[in-house]
Amino acid sequence: MKSYRKELWFNIPSRRAFVNITPQVEEALRESGVAEGLVLINAMHITASVFINDDESGLHRDYEAWLEKLAPHAPVSQYKHNVGEDNADAHMKRQIMGREVVVAVTDGKLDFGTWEQIFYGEFDGRRKKRVLIKIIGD
Amino acid sequence: MKSYRKELWFNIPSRRAFVNITPQVEEALRESGVAEGLVLINAMHITASVFINDDESGLHRDYEAWLEKLAPHAPVSQYKHNVGEDNADAHMKRQIMGREVVVAVTDGKLDFGTWEQIFYGEFDGRRKKRVLIKIIGD
Amino acid sequence: MKSYRKELWFNIPSRRAFVNITPQVEEALRESGVAEGLVLINAMHITASVFINDDESGLHRDYEAWLEKLAPHAPVSQYKHNVGEDNADAHMKRQIMGREVVVAVTDGKLDFGTWEQIFYGEFDGRRKKRVLIKIIGD
Repeated sequence: MKSYRKELWFNIPSRRAFVNITPQVEEALRESGVAEGLVLINAMHITASVFINDDESGLHRDYEAWLEKLAPHAPVSQYKHNVGEDNADAHMKRQIMGREVVVAVTDGKLDFGTWEQIFYGEFDGRRKKRVLIKIIGD
Repeated sequence: MKSYRKELWFNIPSRRAFVNITPQVEEALRESGVAEGLVLINAMHITASVFINDDESGLHRDYEAWLEKLAPHAPVSQYKHNVGEDNADAHMKRQIMGREVVVAVTDGKLDFGTWEQIFYGEFDGRRKKRVLIKIIGD
Repeated sequence: MKSYRKELWFNIPSRRAFVNITPQVEEALRESGVAEGLVLINAMHITASVFINDDESGLHRDYEAWLEKLAPHAPVSQYKHNVGEDNADAHMKRQIMGREVVVAVTDGKLDFGTWEQIFYGEFDGRRKKRVLIKIIGD
């Protein structure tokens, strides 16, 4: 069994953003030499997500508004976590969007449906954060 | 390491439905010959889910009402994604219910608790869509 | 390929609680002898979660209040599932927080960011329930 590990680093200038990381995951998969197996892609931070959905800017604005409605940032005083912090909402948004995805590898490629794309979801940016790619297989 | 791949196809006549796919996953596992490993089961579409919960019709009606409350379909004009589309809510419902599950394989069987069952969650049906089963192990 | 399986048992005296199970997962990983691979940790019950987030008591109280807002327990009569049951809300809370996590194993350790910790999330306690740890790799 082969295994391969790679980190992706981000420093998002805004508090929240969605970044398509599919090309970087495909590159890691080529580097791994794995033809059949699984790829795990996870945020290494607890105020960020990795998820799979559509690369469509209208949808991303809808997600932003929807997450803000389900887990509002302000007023920050509504959260007990926000003692010297202001990111409690980011810990909630991340739970809805998820920490990780696991993707099948078949014939050396991400085994995806037509519209599946992998995103890094940042909910508390303006600092360096990272994503882990771990590939296992043959 | 063995690996096995199979697609399940659906054409749900309604917009939304939950379908128990546990028997199909068990069949794929038998076909794979894997005794110890992991099974990934994921929607290959971004407006559908694969999740594990109870096969109880009352609960499924509760999920339907609850998801509609958290991410309402109408009015479709509330979503920026809905330009020539009307399925933005389906992209949200799928995030709450999840894209995929990973299940342990032990002694050639799905290593499940008593009530665990695998469901395909359709949020934008009335067309052909599919689920991927990928099994790795020995 | 090696594989290793272990169950963790809980009997939470309250309806809801979050329990840090990172030390138990690390112990299972040491027992497995796996240096490179993946660990799956999942609830074997459909009214409980396994998730990764911060071990901070203020945040946990925020999660409790937030989940109660998104999927209220009372009145229990609002849910069709609650015929001889009162735990429909627990099936919903579990979907938001998730059934499982998959964690990379690198050099024999959980390949974690600084603040990542694994939690068992109980939403319908006061009885014996369990979590499955399945480790595969070399």
